[in-house]
Amino acid sequence: MSNANLEVSQQLQQLLLQVADRTKYFLGYPVSKDFDYSELLPFLQFPMNNLGDPFVKSTYQVDSREMEREVVHFFAELFRANPENVWGYVTNGGSEGNLYGLYVARELYPNAMVYFSEDTHYSIQKNVTLLNMEYVIVRSQENGEIDYNDLKEAIRYNRHRPVVVVANIGTTMTEAKDDIPRIKQLVADMAIEKCYVHADAALAGGFAPFVKPRPAFDFVDGCDSISVSGHKFIGSPMPSGVVVVKKENRDRIARKIAYIGSSDATITGSRNGHSPLFLWYAIKKLGVDGFANRAQHSLEVASYTESRLNEIGVKAWRNTNAITVVFPSPAVEVCAKWQLATEKGFSHIICMPNVTKEQIDEFVSDVMATTPQ
Amino acid sequence: MSNANLEVSQQLQQLLLQVADRTKYFLGYPVSKDFDYSELLPFLQFPMNNLGDPFVKSTYQVDSREMEREVVHFFAELFRANPENVWGYVTNGGSEGNLYGLYVARELYPNAMVYFSEDTHYSIQKNVTLLNMEYVIVRSQENGEIDYNDLKEAIRYNRHRPVVVVANIGTTMTEAKDDIPRIKQLVADMAIEKCYVHADAALAGGFAPFVKPRPAFDFVDGCDSISVSGHKFIGSPMPSGVVVVKKENRDRIARKIAYIGSSDATITGSRNGHSPLFLWYAIKKLGVDGFANRAQHSLEVASYTESRLNEIGVKAWRNTNAITVVFPSPAVEVCAKWQLATEKGFSHIICMPNVTKEQIDEFVSDVMATTPQ
Repeated sequence: MSNANLEVSQQLQQLLLQVADRTKYFLGYPVSKDFDYSELLPFLQFPMNNLGDPFVKSTYQVDSREMEREVVHFFAELFRANPENVWGYVTNGGSEGNLYGLYVARELYPNAMVYFSEDTHYSIQKNVTLLNMEYVIVRSQENGEIDYNDLKEAIRYNRHRPVVVVANIGTTMTEAKDDIPRIKQLVADMAIEKCYVHADAALAGGFAPFVKPRPAFDFVDGCDSISVSGHKFIGSPMPSGVVVVKKENRDRIARKIAYIGSSDATITGSRNGHSPLFLWYAIKKLGVDGFANRAQHSLEVASYTESRLNEIGVKAWRNTNAITVVFPSPAVEVCAKWQLATEKGFSHIICMPNVTKEQIDEFVSDVMATTPQ
Repeated sequence: MSNANLEVSQQLQQLLLQVADRTKYFLGYPVSKDFDYSELLPFLQFPMNNLGDPFVKSTYQVDSREMEREVVHFFAELFRANPENVWGYVTNGGSEGNLYGLYVARELYPNAMVYFSEDTHYSIQKNVTLLNMEYVIVRSQENGEIDYNDLKEAIRYNRHRPVVVVANIGTTMTEAKDDIPRIKQLVADMAIEKCYVHADAALAGGFAPFVKPRPAFDFVDGCDSISVSGHKFIGSPMPSGVVVVKKENRDRIARKIAYIGSSDATITGSRNGHSPLFLWYAIKKLGVDGFANRAQHSLEVASYTESRLNEIGVKAWRNTNAITVVFPSPAVEVCAKWQLATEKGFSHIICMPNVTKEQIDEFVSDVMATTPQ
């Protein structure tokens, strides 16, 4: 091996060790890491590219479009979409799905005002800015859920304009879920007919369908599109996501795009052909029951975390049926070790399916060891 | 192995065979496939995510941000960017880079009119639509290059508005390159000061720096941003790209984004941490000389293809120093076998670094066998 190649290999070894180490202590990010996709590695030899619309035939055939369609249908069913009126694709992450949902909303109602709560992920504001849409930020309640009175107030000032609401189905910080039927009712009460609700279910979309009582977040509950992340609850080596929209709305974009000579209604042109394969594989291996078990495990560990922290005097809490436990930020070294983000003095642990009670015990010991007596 | 698992494995085996087969006959798409990234496969066990801005520290540390910065600097240098005024990131493909360049342009000149030629890739129109910008499509010359007179004419009608031009550095169909200094001169002649030129160098950005004479496409030639694909000339299992912009322009977006509480001036939030690693690895293994050799090889094979086709009476041609050879579409079965796209009766072969003279010979035989005597 030449010196240059040796150096590259050494750099890679070093990064691999670091990455393996950093993945071990990893409670603050909503990323599952209990995946084993070794059966899929042979595909990495090939330039898999799901060019364009997964539901339109392509001449480029080094792809996983068939699997991608299965993934979309799997989530569409979980989200209780009308099978006759559904379309979607596998995205590069939750953000792209949000951008797509908002894009569809804008094409439907070009003059709309967009509303979302102050607890909304910053990428929504980035997306809305990118799309050149006007927006109003609405107050949140203490638990992170949108303040329905303030939403009503904000809409009242703009009753002449169509309404687009981004509902959080699990906010980043406290996993609060906005109640979609309540939002729809509030808009209907003002006799506003042009209303579009996009559900940002980046985190909770993967398990909300299995929680009882089921949160009111899906197509039957009144949303018009949903974005969910693939690398979060399912877990995937690279960021991915699924966006599901109503086909009639997608067709509106498609018509506009067809006018410019393309049948591709996705956002990018070339699309990662490996990530649909990862999601498809996980879905096949887990099945609906596997998803339900993962959800159950996460809820149990979350409940355990909340209790353990309360036992040692840390004021931890969580939203109903949330897998996210919120508490006053522990010592800096504890945050650093477990990669916990801090916001306004609070941190959180997201009990993803890979988080174990043993890890929680270790974390709780760390907190105790650094708490002044 | 359970029946269900067996079925999954069989489906995967089948897809793998199909993909391997379809990759073999693959002259119509600008995708290199001569890569060997096996040394990087161990990273696929980890959720590598280059969250946010690669130049801003993150608490999420399962990443390849350091390598990503090296990739950006490598291309910035190839594109002769001012080292004091450069920023960029690894994207999910050329399209995202174009979207980013245009986004920067819009933030700089919100009232701009966008101009590009009719030979421009359809994703530009999609991007401009997404960004809610107004645009004018300009005629192309026979060879696919923008018609400078028509561009002048179009701008003349909108002299009161800032100018944004998307210059093609290799059109999809004929690999025509728009001349950036000529565009800048033409704008300057109309005394328009507010002008932004984005270079869509998706295909040719990977080799244009090594072609002599060097095409006029980079920062010294007057562009303000460049997007290049990573999965094309370099080759990568998944679509990727690099966008390079002037830091002062990116800072303008960053300020606006900071106002909404984020330091992340990229388009998505979570970003694939594997693709920068693939690009970094290729750059390290190839070095600048390796890139130059690949460019040389492609040019030679292109020249060979053009001659061979002409020899058998097919009217093939190519733009100066292009690796794309254009010719009247052969029989349907030949197009299908080699996955050739057809547009207005023409097809093309893109002589990517992995294309060999042996493949060209096989293709030429196929064309001969299906040509009526």
